[in-house]
Amino acid sequence: MNEQNLRELLDLVRLGALPPERAVARLKHLPFEDLGFAKVDHHRALRQGYAEVVFGKGKTPEQVAEIVKSMLRQKGSRQNILVTRADAKMFAAVRRANAGVKRLAKFHPLSGVITIERSREITGKGQIFVVSAGTSDIPVAEEALLTARAMGNRAEHLYDVGVAGIHRLLEHREKLTQARVIICVAGMEGALPSVVGGLVAVPVIAVPTSTGYGASFGGVAALLGMLNSCASNVTVVNIDNGFGAACVASCINRL
Amino acid sequence: MNEQNLRELLDLVRLGALPPERAVARLKHLPFEDLGFAKVDHHRALRQGYAEVVFGKGKTPEQVAEIVKSMLRQKGSRQNILVTRADAKMFAAVRRANAGVKRLAKFHPLSGVITIERSREITGKGQIFVVSAGTSDIPVAEEALLTARAMGNRAEHLYDVGVAGIHRLLEHREKLTQARVIICVAGMEGALPSVVGGLVAVPVIAVPTSTGYGASFGGVAALLGMLNSCASNVTVVNIDNGFGAACVASCINRL
Amino acid sequence: MNEQNLRELLDLVRLGALPPERAVARLKHLPFEDLGFAKVDHHRALRQGYAEVVFGKGKTPEQVAEIVKSMLRQKGSRQNILVTRADAKMFAAVRRANAGVKRLAKFHPLSGVITIERSREITGKGQIFVVSAGTSDIPVAEEALLTARAMGNRAEHLYDVGVAGIHRLLEHREKLTQARVIICVAGMEGALPSVVGGLVAVPVIAVPTSTGYGASFGGVAALLGMLNSCASNVTVVNIDNGFGAACVASCINRL
Amino acid sequence: MNEQNLRELLDLVRLGALPPERAVARLKHLPFEDLGFAKVDHHRALRQGYAEVVFGKGKTPEQVAEIVKSMLRQKGSRQNILVTRADAKMFAAVRRANAGVKRLAKFHPLSGVITIERSREITGKGQIFVVSAGTSDIPVAEEALLTARAMGNRAEHLYDVGVAGIHRLLEHREKLTQARVIICVAGMEGALPSVVGGLVAVPVIAVPTSTGYGASFGGVAALLGMLNSCASNVTVVNIDNGFGAACVASCINRL
Amino acid sequence: MNEQNLRELLDLVRLGALPPERAVARLKHLPFEDLGFAKVDHHRALRQGYAEVVFGKGKTPEQVAEIVKSMLRQKGSRQNILVTRADAKMFAAVRRANAGVKRLAKFHPLSGVITIERSREITGKGQIFVVSAGTSDIPVAEEALLTARAMGNRAEHLYDVGVAGIHRLLEHREKLTQARVIICVAGMEGALPSVVGGLVAVPVIAVPTSTGYGASFGGVAALLGMLNSCASNVTVVNIDNGFGAACVASCINRL
Amino acid sequence: MNEQNLRELLDLVRLGALPPERAVARLKHLPFEDLGFAKVDHHRALRQGYAEVVFGKGKTPEQVAEIVKSMLRQKGSRQNILVTRADAKMFAAVRRANAGVKRLAKFHPLSGVITIERSREITGKGQIFVVSAGTSDIPVAEEALLTARAMGNRAEHLYDVGVAGIHRLLEHREKLTQARVIICVAGMEGALPSVVGGLVAVPVIAVPTSTGYGASFGGVAALLGMLNSCASNVTVVNIDNGFGAACVASCINRL
Amino acid sequence: MNEQNLRELLDLVRLGALPPERAVARLKHLPFEDLGFAKVDHHRALRQGYAEVVFGKGKTPEQVAEIVKSMLRQKGSRQNILVTRADAKMFAAVRRANAGVKRLAKFHPLSGVITIERSREITGKGQIFVVSAGTSDIPVAEEALLTARAMGNRAEHLYDVGVAGIHRLLEHREKLTQARVIICVAGMEGALPSVVGGLVAVPVIAVPTSTGYGASFGGVAALLGMLNSCASNVTVVNIDNGFGAACVASCINRL
Amino acid sequence: MNEQNLRELLDLVRLGALPPERAVARLKHLPFEDLGFAKVDHHRALRQGYAEVVFGKGKTPEQVAEIVKSMLRQKGSRQNILVTRADAKMFAAVRRANAGVKRLAKFHPLSGVITIERSREITGKGQIFVVSAGTSDIPVAEEALLTARAMGNRAEHLYDVGVAGIHRLLEHREKLTQARVIICVAGMEGALPSVVGGLVAVPVIAVPTSTGYGASFGGVAALLGMLNSCASNVTVVNIDNGFGAACVASCINRL
Repeated sequence: MNEQNLRELLDLVRLGALPPERAVARLKHLPFEDLGFAKVDHHRALRQGYAEVVFGKGKTPEQVAEIVKSMLRQKGSRQNILVTRADAKMFAAVRRANAGVKRLAKFHPLSGVITIERSREITGKGQIFVVSAGTSDIPVAEEALLTARAMGNRAEHLYDVGVAGIHRLLEHREKLTQARVIICVAGMEGALPSVVGGLVAVPVIAVPTSTGYGASFGGVAALLGMLNSCASNVTVVNIDNGFGAACVASCINRL
Repeated sequence: MNEQNLRELLDLVRLGALPPERAVARLKHLPFEDLGFAKVDHHRALRQGYAEVVFGKGKTPEQVAEIVKSMLRQKGSRQNILVTRADAKMFAAVRRANAGVKRLAKFHPLSGVITIERSREITGKGQIFVVSAGTSDIPVAEEALLTARAMGNRAEHLYDVGVAGIHRLLEHREKLTQARVIICVAGMEGALPSVVGGLVAVPVIAVPTSTGYGASFGGVAALLGMLNSCASNVTVVNIDNGFGAACVASCINRL
Repeated sequence: MNEQNLRELLDLVRLGALPPERAVARLKHLPFEDLGFAKVDHHRALRQGYAEVVFGKGKTPEQVAEIVKSMLRQKGSRQNILVTRADAKMFAAVRRANAGVKRLAKFHPLSGVITIERSREITGKGQIFVVSAGTSDIPVAEEALLTARAMGNRAEHLYDVGVAGIHRLLEHREKLTQARVIICVAGMEGALPSVVGGLVAVPVIAVPTSTGYGASFGGVAALLGMLNSCASNVTVVNIDNGFGAACVASCINRL
Repeated sequence: MNEQNLRELLDLVRLGALPPERAVARLKHLPFEDLGFAKVDHHRALRQGYAEVVFGKGKTPEQVAEIVKSMLRQKGSRQNILVTRADAKMFAAVRRANAGVKRLAKFHPLSGVITIERSREITGKGQIFVVSAGTSDIPVAEEALLTARAMGNRAEHLYDVGVAGIHRLLEHREKLTQARVIICVAGMEGALPSVVGGLVAVPVIAVPTSTGYGASFGGVAALLGMLNSCASNVTVVNIDNGFGAACVASCINRL
Repeated sequence: MNEQNLRELLDLVRLGALPPERAVARLKHLPFEDLGFAKVDHHRALRQGYAEVVFGKGKTPEQVAEIVKSMLRQKGSRQNILVTRADAKMFAAVRRANAGVKRLAKFHPLSGVITIERSREITGKGQIFVVSAGTSDIPVAEEALLTARAMGNRAEHLYDVGVAGIHRLLEHREKLTQARVIICVAGMEGALPSVVGGLVAVPVIAVPTSTGYGASFGGVAALLGMLNSCASNVTVVNIDNGFGAACVASCINRL
Repeated sequence: MNEQNLRELLDLVRLGALPPERAVARLKHLPFEDLGFAKVDHHRALRQGYAEVVFGKGKTPEQVAEIVKSMLRQKGSRQNILVTRADAKMFAAVRRANAGVKRLAKFHPLSGVITIERSREITGKGQIFVVSAGTSDIPVAEEALLTARAMGNRAEHLYDVGVAGIHRLLEHREKLTQARVIICVAGMEGALPSVVGGLVAVPVIAVPTSTGYGASFGGVAALLGMLNSCASNVTVVNIDNGFGAACVASCINRL
Repeated sequence: MNEQNLRELLDLVRLGALPPERAVARLKHLPFEDLGFAKVDHHRALRQGYAEVVFGKGKTPEQVAEIVKSMLRQKGSRQNILVTRADAKMFAAVRRANAGVKRLAKFHPLSGVITIERSREITGKGQIFVVSAGTSDIPVAEEALLTARAMGNRAEHLYDVGVAGIHRLLEHREKLTQARVIICVAGMEGALPSVVGGLVAVPVIAVPTSTGYGASFGGVAALLGMLNSCASNVTVVNIDNGFGAACVASCINRL
Repeated sequence: MNEQNLRELLDLVRLGALPPERAVARLKHLPFEDLGFAKVDHHRALRQGYAEVVFGKGKTPEQVAEIVKSMLRQKGSRQNILVTRADAKMFAAVRRANAGVKRLAKFHPLSGVITIERSREITGKGQIFVVSAGTSDIPVAEEALLTARAMGNRAEHLYDVGVAGIHRLLEHREKLTQARVIICVAGMEGALPSVVGGLVAVPVIAVPTSTGYGASFGGVAALLGMLNSCASNVTVVNIDNGFGAACVASCINRL
């Protein structure tokens, strides 16, 4: 249920078509429909304009499928649905249990994302650009890209433009300046957001990745690099959190 | 020199009033006027729309005064000037060396910020709200507030609304929802951005502070808390970086 | 053997039914009955009023079953028995080796706890309330819940009330104020205990969990957040230590 | 204003002596009397039964004196007042600015605590025992002791009983068993709470201290030791947080 | 080749039975007999009086068997042979490849140690006592025990005497005072060496173990606790390094 | 009071010259003579054969002088007295307050040690050798040297033999082999104990120092290096703990 | 395409045999031939004189084979090809997909390196010497050795010369002094580069390895040791980065 | 005494002008002339071709002056002398105590370096280029610059070219390609070496600096960034170690 749905519901109330007490009941009911193992928070869309999202990791395929089913059951909702940190088994379970959206559901193995695209409406005002440094940063970058799109944004990507080959990045400088928000995904020394941030005048959301070995400490080196960025339009989200970066970017892109 | 100045210069070129070669010379000259110890980057305003900023810490009062003088020398520029991490001695030096702006220059001892307000133009589209958790977070919050204002934003603050007294924050819920960007400053467990992020639908820039003792590890506890925020509209900047948070917020507020 | 058992034994001595020397012998014998790989400490119940507890992790199913058997052999003891960090194989081994309690033994797969409930006596004075933030904190919360019950407490739970949806927690505010001790289980930023602590006047035992990824560092972010809680009725136990939290809560609840 | 005060106020309402609207006004007014730099939270006493407390560190002597004055202005309140992390200058300022309590105000230089004892009422049910390991742990232990007493508890101490001279601790075993709550203060390896916890059946609040050098890492060694305590009645507060330990202990002692 | 062997060789030289040049050749040859993947250092026994030791972890069963074979080939050597961090496959390979010592070779699955006892000579002057805290510390303690014995020491053990049940340790106080060197193995808070160190006047070698979870950080908590021990006869070796502790203890016991 | 004193006391008892109850009373009295701020533990000498030691850091000059006075008051004791981490003011106070030992008291400014040498008896069996790597390690090395001597050992030193100039160390190889115990003091990479350990067959006590900058992290680099030493006769004490190293060395040297 | 190839291409241009526009096209085309998942950077050889290198870890065998195929397709290039962090499956896939180089391709299981040696030209001026400390450091050392050779250097190795047996290293001192650059691979305390650095006058590239356990923290101990080396001709690369060390060494060896 | 001096000495021996035994005596004498607190290692110049260097930090002005005097006393030596981490007082002491070089001695307050330039001979083959990112990195960069020059290298610098203003660095690209070795000094995110490394084909020595605040952790962020550099011609030295970087660069520049 998003803001649009809420307004429709309130209009029904205003028009006398829905008695207030039933409106209250439905509102109260919706956000806490209890699945036993988790409360699906349908209010979140209302509060933050997001797609419906399930964090797959740590859940069984059956749990994931059940949560998706509950999301689909909500009347009037046409939000896109996203399962992050998913795998092929979860995808199979989702398709089995939700025959109605079988054709809409897609699995993106690189990033482990399942998308169920029920709406193609673009609600973001400008373009979100996802830039990543190395081959091994692509899964996180793709998670960001798919999330941004599912949330109603035009989103493009530019992969494999690490700072040690600065000319590759500079070739795309013009493209960069057309974005309204940039998501910058990098592991190792995490220097990309500083360079990108210096080239543009829009906010840059930096996502450290856990790629690398030894003194990369699972992404800590990149995280610290980004927090200490000398470019002042850079903010940071958690390591590997492509989803979170896209949420913030989408949130900014609706302003 | 900001975007406005650049356009005027280019118009002069277009009108034939300024030969291209001199335009080039001036553009080239401006950003690298050399002060011996640091290159004042006048281009930054152009690229990112910022006020002119000096990071005071580690510089002598004389160096600070000299850099400010150089900024004031730039013709056509009417940018506000900000010195962060400054002290009373720097302020005295700045006033001594720059008699022309003596009355504009103000020192804010709580946050150690010097402001020289040459322009009151509001260029940000909405309001930036600075929220802080405890008394000892106020210096960082004030740095953010003054920076946001110097960069042409309407900015308000709400201090001392820690999560252990959640009713105090909730009383101001309506105010929060009127902001276009929120800056959230907190030390200790750094939980405020998560709660605030859950109450609003706009981006929340979280600033951890180095307040606290023992296992706060100079702000690391708050930093980690914010990076792991369960609210998905939260991004993070470096510990005590009120200035940086305001830069990003201002950058978003111009979109 | 708990305090009750000891008093009965001493009454026998007082009444002449048990010669002191044999009483001594039995007391001495009980706590150190040697199983080869571990000394089951039957004295602990006496000293601290706890159920008999086995920490399953790192032991073979056979070792676990053998320890349980030894606990059951103790005459006069009617303590509940708890195996934490157990799995289905351990459960099978326990049932095989201890036919007498086959029907009492239960396995709780979510938390990996085996319970053998031999007593339903309630010895705790008030109610222990277990609150947890996210779906993935439930296993630790359940370990706490089952432990608290096995130790003779009335214990209830409230799951999935993270601080980014503060209204969900506030809806249950009244329930919270009825507890005598609260156990608060949270991963990620670990902010829940601060908010809960601010709402109640009773002790809050905070349990950080190792959920999350990246900069959660296996629960360290939550742990630090809790140690720096701005609510002054919060104390902390080790990461994922639902069992320990329930021990302390039970200990407080008997005062 | 504590619970007692609130009940009296509500009785006045019940008896018709205080119109509800004025009761509301007073309640609303009290907790947010604004001092400019910090909101003194008079509600906290009501919610948690604490003394009025000021955290002195980072405040000027004048700020501390002003906050104390505001606390004293509250009509009907007879709470004890405590300033922690204070120094001699703060003490002088408090006495200067609050002539009425000059004789009640005391400074404890070892722990840097200022106490203003306005009430000697004992509201805690049992005794709180403060045990500390080495000479250099005494300041933190004293902070805990004074806080516990100011909050209406009988509180005793036992200093300098480190685990390397275990006989000294064992000599006092009987005393320990008479406590209702024990606060255990230790630096270095932080082993004292484990040993004490094994000797008693009541809750042990462990406070790591920042004493030691080298690999003590400012109290981290002791903190980790306590979090990993093999005694299951031990919980932990932040490094050097004697005040917090006493708050929790007092909170438990009122149950 | 140990000191004894060397003296015999030199006696042969003195007696004219071995020409110096051949003595030199043999000495030179022995320590560097090259196995392709590692140089077996036969000199080590000579320099430090140790048994022949292979660190199994990271080697293939075939490599381990080959190294053992090379050790056995050395004429005149009667040193005991020890393979640490071994597994059943390595043991099988050792036995297959070294038929001559099939009956001497033993595998100790708890600690993963293979022993080949070729000499029962006791060269240590007193007794080495291995004390450990919890059940899960036993593997490391056993590695220490077997190593100490293989190096010609009388060595006894005392398991499961954690500090939270201090009476169990105190019951064995007399035994402890009979040791010439004590090895103290403990995980979690690592407090045992401090208590033991306070009870005896001999050196205590502390071995932290990686048992525990959460804030034990793989043995770091115990390591720091031991480094900060308040008992001044305690020194520390690496986490889980039961072998190293026994080497030092043996080295001390020969003085 | 050391073992010698105790035996004399017990002989008096045996001879009938001292009634047991008075012996008990004296024994009980001695170790806990209360100075108000610390219990001087006279038993420690008895238990561990140490000199009387005061840890100066964090104490006032008056406290130090008072503790020394109490030590001197003990009849029959002729132990050497040591104050570590002291300064010139403490030394002056000690001399003022203890006129009787004015001439025996010496201050060693390099290491900040005060010695009061009342006995020159050598009780250690062999020689303790203190080896240090760089100029800045000398203070810690001197603390170890003075402590070892005060405890009745012959102790020599060899300074400034870092591993990057290995020939300097090798020149002294013969000297090293004459020691019964070696104390190895090093900062930076902490490699010296490994090299020394490989050259000798006696125990090596490694002391990391906090010298260095940047990634030395106050001695952590050296500490880790020593804990991971590839020489198996090396054990480690806390950073800068020259005193502790000498205690252990002395303890070993009495075996 | 290396510098040689580029010069030939430019000569063609100079001679009129290649129209500039086509030269540009070819140059532009080469470095960005897109494989879908990664941009193979053929420019790198030109810029840095390296062999063509694929980092195998995290790629599928098919991806590796495809990248190698693309490298082989480049006309005129005769660079050696290297796949690091590879396994047997990748090797099989590379051979299947690139029949033309089947006989040139070799797999080195110890270090997981695949080499395709297309050129034996020696371009480095002197010898690169790879020295390693323990058996378990050999894989990293071999990666360095193979990389150095593939890049056109004469490279030799010296394995198993740890600092605890310093005589083994000293025996090879003369060899060491013949090297032009030394790569020093060591885990545990990482002391080898300091000792080697003190023996020679050429640059020493130190590579910490992740061998060891406990407080080696996956190579951090060695890394810190090397960063704090007291030898001033030592620089450091990331943990286990034998490849990187060889790149730098090769880069130096071409000067 | 450098290699040149040694050859002259040996020539004297060859010519019969210096009896071998006296040559030996002089060689032996020189490197260990004892100053009481430190052994000045005159051999180092011989082994590594360095200037004579004193690390000033932690030494008294008198000690520094004395060491310099001893260096000047060495006959035949014409090495430049360098005191790093010095201050004005040390400089005054050096001039007072060494009147003969009063005019040669210079103090560089920015970097705290004292130079005594006795030789202007250029022995390095190419140019060393020192590049730094921000104003606050200049002290470390200057230390590197002065050290490189004192060691006989042509050395130039390029300051204030951070990666967030990438155009400033690119403007100097040609200059960079003329260097034979590059020293790259940067704090904050430490990204400069990666970008520079990608632009050139020569070795880049990266020096992290301790500038920055919060999550820069005293240079750790920059250090990790550099260790994880995606440019493969980058190696790293300790935080703030401008001196060490210049030593390595000089060492390479002599090859």
